[in-house]
Amino acid sequence: VNGIVVRNIRRADTAVVESLGRLGVATVHEAQGRIGLMQPYMRPLWRGARIAGSAVTALCHPGDNWMIHVAVEVLRPGDVLIVACSSESADGAFGELLATSLRAHGAKGVVLDIGCRDAHEIAEMQFPLWSRAISAKGTVKATIGSVNVPVVCAGVQVHPGDVVVADDDGVVIVRRADAETVVKAGEEREKKEAASRARLEKGELGLDIYGMRKALEDKGLKYVDGPLD
Amino acid sequence: VNGIVVRNIRRADTAVVESLGRLGVATVHEAQGRIGLMQPYMRPLWRGARIAGSAVTALCHPGDNWMIHVAVEVLRPGDVLIVACSSESADGAFGELLATSLRAHGAKGVVLDIGCRDAHEIAEMQFPLWSRAISAKGTVKATIGSVNVPVVCAGVQVHPGDVVVADDDGVVIVRRADAETVVKAGEEREKKEAASRARLEKGELGLDIYGMRKALEDKGLKYVDGPLD
Amino acid sequence: VNGIVVRNIRRADTAVVESLGRLGVATVHEAQGRIGLMQPYMRPLWRGARIAGSAVTALCHPGDNWMIHVAVEVLRPGDVLIVACSSESADGAFGELLATSLRAHGAKGVVLDIGCRDAHEIAEMQFPLWSRAISAKGTVKATIGSVNVPVVCAGVQVHPGDVVVADDDGVVIVRRADAETVVKAGEEREKKEAASRARLEKGELGLDIYGMRKALEDKGLKYVDGPLD
Amino acid sequence: VNGIVVRNIRRADTAVVESLGRLGVATVHEAQGRIGLMQPYMRPLWRGARIAGSAVTALCHPGDNWMIHVAVEVLRPGDVLIVACSSESADGAFGELLATSLRAHGAKGVVLDIGCRDAHEIAEMQFPLWSRAISAKGTVKATIGSVNVPVVCAGVQVHPGDVVVADDDGVVIVRRADAETVVKAGEEREKKEAASRARLEKGELGLDIYGMRKALEDKGLKYVDGPLD
Amino acid sequence: VNGIVVRNIRRADTAVVESLGRLGVATVHEAQGRIGLMQPYMRPLWRGARIAGSAVTALCHPGDNWMIHVAVEVLRPGDVLIVACSSESADGAFGELLATSLRAHGAKGVVLDIGCRDAHEIAEMQFPLWSRAISAKGTVKATIGSVNVPVVCAGVQVHPGDVVVADDDGVVIVRRADAETVVKAGEEREKKEAASRARLEKGELGLDIYGMRKALEDKGLKYVDGPLD
Amino acid sequence: VNGIVVRNIRRADTAVVESLGRLGVATVHEAQGRIGLMQPYMRPLWRGARIAGSAVTALCHPGDNWMIHVAVEVLRPGDVLIVACSSESADGAFGELLATSLRAHGAKGVVLDIGCRDAHEIAEMQFPLWSRAISAKGTVKATIGSVNVPVVCAGVQVHPGDVVVADDDGVVIVRRADAETVVKAGEEREKKEAASRARLEKGELGLDIYGMRKALEDKGLKYVDGPLD
Repeated sequence: VNGIVVRNIRRADTAVVESLGRLGVATVHEAQGRIGLMQPYMRPLWRGARIAGSAVTALCHPGDNWMIHVAVEVLRPGDVLIVACSSESADGAFGELLATSLRAHGAKGVVLDIGCRDAHEIAEMQFPLWSRAISAKGTVKATIGSVNVPVVCAGVQVHPGDVVVADDDGVVIVRRADAETVVKAGEEREKKEAASRARLEKGELGLDIYGMRKALEDKGLKYVDGPLD
Repeated sequence: VNGIVVRNIRRADTAVVESLGRLGVATVHEAQGRIGLMQPYMRPLWRGARIAGSAVTALCHPGDNWMIHVAVEVLRPGDVLIVACSSESADGAFGELLATSLRAHGAKGVVLDIGCRDAHEIAEMQFPLWSRAISAKGTVKATIGSVNVPVVCAGVQVHPGDVVVADDDGVVIVRRADAETVVKAGEEREKKEAASRARLEKGELGLDIYGMRKALEDKGLKYVDGPLD
Repeated sequence: VNGIVVRNIRRADTAVVESLGRLGVATVHEAQGRIGLMQPYMRPLWRGARIAGSAVTALCHPGDNWMIHVAVEVLRPGDVLIVACSSESADGAFGELLATSLRAHGAKGVVLDIGCRDAHEIAEMQFPLWSRAISAKGTVKATIGSVNVPVVCAGVQVHPGDVVVADDDGVVIVRRADAETVVKAGEEREKKEAASRARLEKGELGLDIYGMRKALEDKGLKYVDGPLD
Repeated sequence: VNGIVVRNIRRADTAVVESLGRLGVATVHEAQGRIGLMQPYMRPLWRGARIAGSAVTALCHPGDNWMIHVAVEVLRPGDVLIVACSSESADGAFGELLATSLRAHGAKGVVLDIGCRDAHEIAEMQFPLWSRAISAKGTVKATIGSVNVPVVCAGVQVHPGDVVVADDDGVVIVRRADAETVVKAGEEREKKEAASRARLEKGELGLDIYGMRKALEDKGLKYVDGPLD
Repeated sequence: VNGIVVRNIRRADTAVVESLGRLGVATVHEAQGRIGLMQPYMRPLWRGARIAGSAVTALCHPGDNWMIHVAVEVLRPGDVLIVACSSESADGAFGELLATSLRAHGAKGVVLDIGCRDAHEIAEMQFPLWSRAISAKGTVKATIGSVNVPVVCAGVQVHPGDVVVADDDGVVIVRRADAETVVKAGEEREKKEAASRARLEKGELGLDIYGMRKALEDKGLKYVDGPLD
Repeated sequence: VNGIVVRNIRRADTAVVESLGRLGVATVHEAQGRIGLMQPYMRPLWRGARIAGSAVTALCHPGDNWMIHVAVEVLRPGDVLIVACSSESADGAFGELLATSLRAHGAKGVVLDIGCRDAHEIAEMQFPLWSRAISAKGTVKATIGSVNVPVVCAGVQVHPGDVVVADDDGVVIVRRADAETVVKAGEEREKKEAASRARLEKGELGLDIYGMRKALEDKGLKYVDGPLD
């Protein structure tokens, strides 16, 4: 199934996507049972961006960025472009001109399991970008791949229309069908964390807040007074 | 010796610790004979922090951050938490809630031979943190380790109560018994460097300031006028 | 041919070097046919520097920075120091004192296929530096290497007098003889990119601007309407 | 969807699986359009094994091999166990006792995106095993995962019942529905390669056998007589 | 404490050392509570060696193997040489001549947190060797280190006289004082494993042998019949 | 200078090449002053090959092996094919059919700064091959590179006609003009090593054979009797 472009995809509800973006990667990842997180080599080009959007996927080949150009046409405002590569490569498949094009079409950002270039210009534009590398090495337009097919990006399966959440902690994918449930679980988690934070700030111990002392003792943890030297 | 928590440890003199912090990692490392430096994969979460404090150590297991919670209770103001892991892992064992707890207990910072998460929030808090990775991947609380036992962190043996010095150059450990000697050696080094700096700024050559020409000639270094092409 | 220092080298025309610097790494790399780019592990110590200059080369050995001191003497204002190492090493062979010395001699910056230290101080000085690592691990002065001989740095052959261009995208080398031609090709490329940028900003597609639709069809790319789920 | 064990899965036809195994990884990968290949860090424990079988999948957590024990019960003779891990880990989650158990249940082999141990014993048993690492570091049985759910293993999505083909070149996954088509394409490819091999052995050039000269000329390839030095 | 050679060290009882060697790395590592295992990048030069001996330690500097020569003089028959390096290096610090010298002095083998060379000759000699790399890059004899001081090798603290156990699974260190206890625990473990092996060979499930079903159910593991597709 | 094929190159004298092959990588590397060694990630596909030959170079692009086919035509018996890649890639650009073709044309072996495939078949053929990876991932024939131009392969500059020496220790390049001198230096080195080996086998110490005791003392090395614990 190489060489296919799917023009239309189903997307999650906009309000749900926004809520996921507000929650952020770490909370969303926990809220959906610790699945869907891309490998930690995926880093933001600049610090401070936090986005969420619907995944439009492109499958490229090493040294070739042709399918990114193809993908722009099927992007809708609010989407996030996910670029997978058929084998490991750090070449700079995405630069400032493509960022300009994506922004003109309303894309929220891009996630690249390959390299980017024009690092300075893209950071100046404040265009949100996560990638495995920065490299000026350009790419050709010689081999076709696919757009809007399921891909594996940085260790995670991404279906077109899944929700992409990305911030300084990395990138997490939420299946479209799970998005609403994850928002609810995430918001509950946030409330609990706010309560814990208030107690921790006052110096209460996690040991007491989370009631860990009994379990630790059962596992056999021993305290000694010390010092031992 | 797994499953032990040592409540009390000996710490270095506060003034000595502060002096080591002022000297910084590169100078301290030189002053103690180029030992005790953690491997360079340990990077600060944000640039510009420079801390020193007494080491409280936690030995965790991959995918498990239980012992960090245990360690908070035995931390004293001015300490730095050192987290070692029994095998290589980049999971996000430390986040903003733990940073809040550590700060409430007066910790100067944390050094993690594992990943951290909530990168944006911890940077906003200006909480000093060095780690091998940033990853939203959470951890469980299922396996006990130890607190305040000797650990190997990023290639360096750390004993509880050793002095931890950390800045943009990385993390160095000074044995408690050596701390005072290292301060003296570091301060002498600083004076010499200040003198060299003044001469280098004026354009004098290291070759002359450090008297290297004879040794280079003895080793057989040859000068040719060139150009050779 | 170890143990040689070549005092004088041929340099490219200053105006040409400046033009290459203005064009930047990605454009220069494209303009010369995608050759001469150092591997992407070479990263700037701080973001935002963009330099160009003539290469003065130093070949060091792991754990030894002696030849950097030797190289300072043959540097001329406008040069960029290229430091290669005879085997892979991340040790901190270059610190703030050497940066001070290079600046005093008019060097535009330094490119290290080894580590640097005094990261905070060098960033404060705004001295442009690219390296493979940051490490406080110091080096000795025990083994001679060479200065101004051809070296391989981060995967690229560098001859003394070649033009070094470096920015947030990495480091690219232009052979002295090619420099003028590359400037012309780069400036033409810039013009074309400016035209493309204006059209992309308005939302035109790369598919149309670059006339890709026919070639994609010839390769067998198929469009389906979708959604497929 | 964590914590699920699916007892029964659909498997590909046995004859088809056997044919894929005979074709081997490189041919199968080509025959299905260069998709489905695991990343090259997956290496055989010993050289010379070539297997194919139906995928039974286990999703484990770092430092935890509990789900492998669970998976054994649902394995059928001819299956290959695929072990994915929720984050990167090299711990030795699989040793000689599990190999003994898998062999007793008729498994053809195991593919681990984590480490193995008892390397010597498993090699002596000639039990086919591919993994990302060898490590004696043991694992606990504390966290549940899933069995026979879709997983990502070494960069490839694997569904239960997909065909796994593995040999000295690595591991490739064929979707169950595609298996028969891939066999046909692979066998045709083999025939063509046999013909090419016979000609290449006689010294004919690929340039002529594959008719490349015209395309190279069109792309602008120039021949010069040389020597140039 | 650089520049020290300790001539005499305490060693563990020979019979105890031999027993640890017979148990092998994986069993010893388990028997002592999963501590003391070197990182998995330490690999045997050739497959099939299994050794145990008393650690004689050498601390070298990158690109320098001088201290290995110094260490030979203090080696006794039955010892294993542990070579640590003050920063990460893959240079070939150990070759066939040193292997000859070690063998002449009765060393059981060598463990190098640096590279080796003469790979073919050392394998032909069947001299047991574990290292982080193979590299022909030679080293100098210019900087002093220490012999028989505590070192960190591949992530593990090694004291002179500790027991080194190494085989195809890697390298594990047993503290001298713990050696006898570890033998006992290891031998008990072996007996249990023999019993489990016999049952597993007959096709009994680990789920039943280790009584895991209840714990899995308590954790919430659910079985579904399937197939789900 | 992309897109050039140089048909004829100068080669070193056959007897000299053979002598270099007999000396092997480690000796040749030492004999020419420790230069020219490829990075240690270049590993033989199978153990025990030792070859030397004249370099024919091919510069390919990631995911593309077209130039290897072009290079076969200009190969002469006794040559070694050196394949460089314009950016980092592990794709399997070389398989059994190309090995067959190279053998038919008399090539001694191949050195690939990219991946190979058909690992089992090539090992069975006993065709000597060094590469950075094994991967079944195939490549296209879409982008032209060059043949018999200078390239950088695994960190070393290779000129067409240089002598390639490769064995289990890796790959070293000798400039054609230096080949004869290197043979002489290598043979002298071999004689010295034979003498040392004989003394080391009898248990004499390197400290005495190489007269190191005085230099160690001058550097400040101190001996203490111990044991210290």
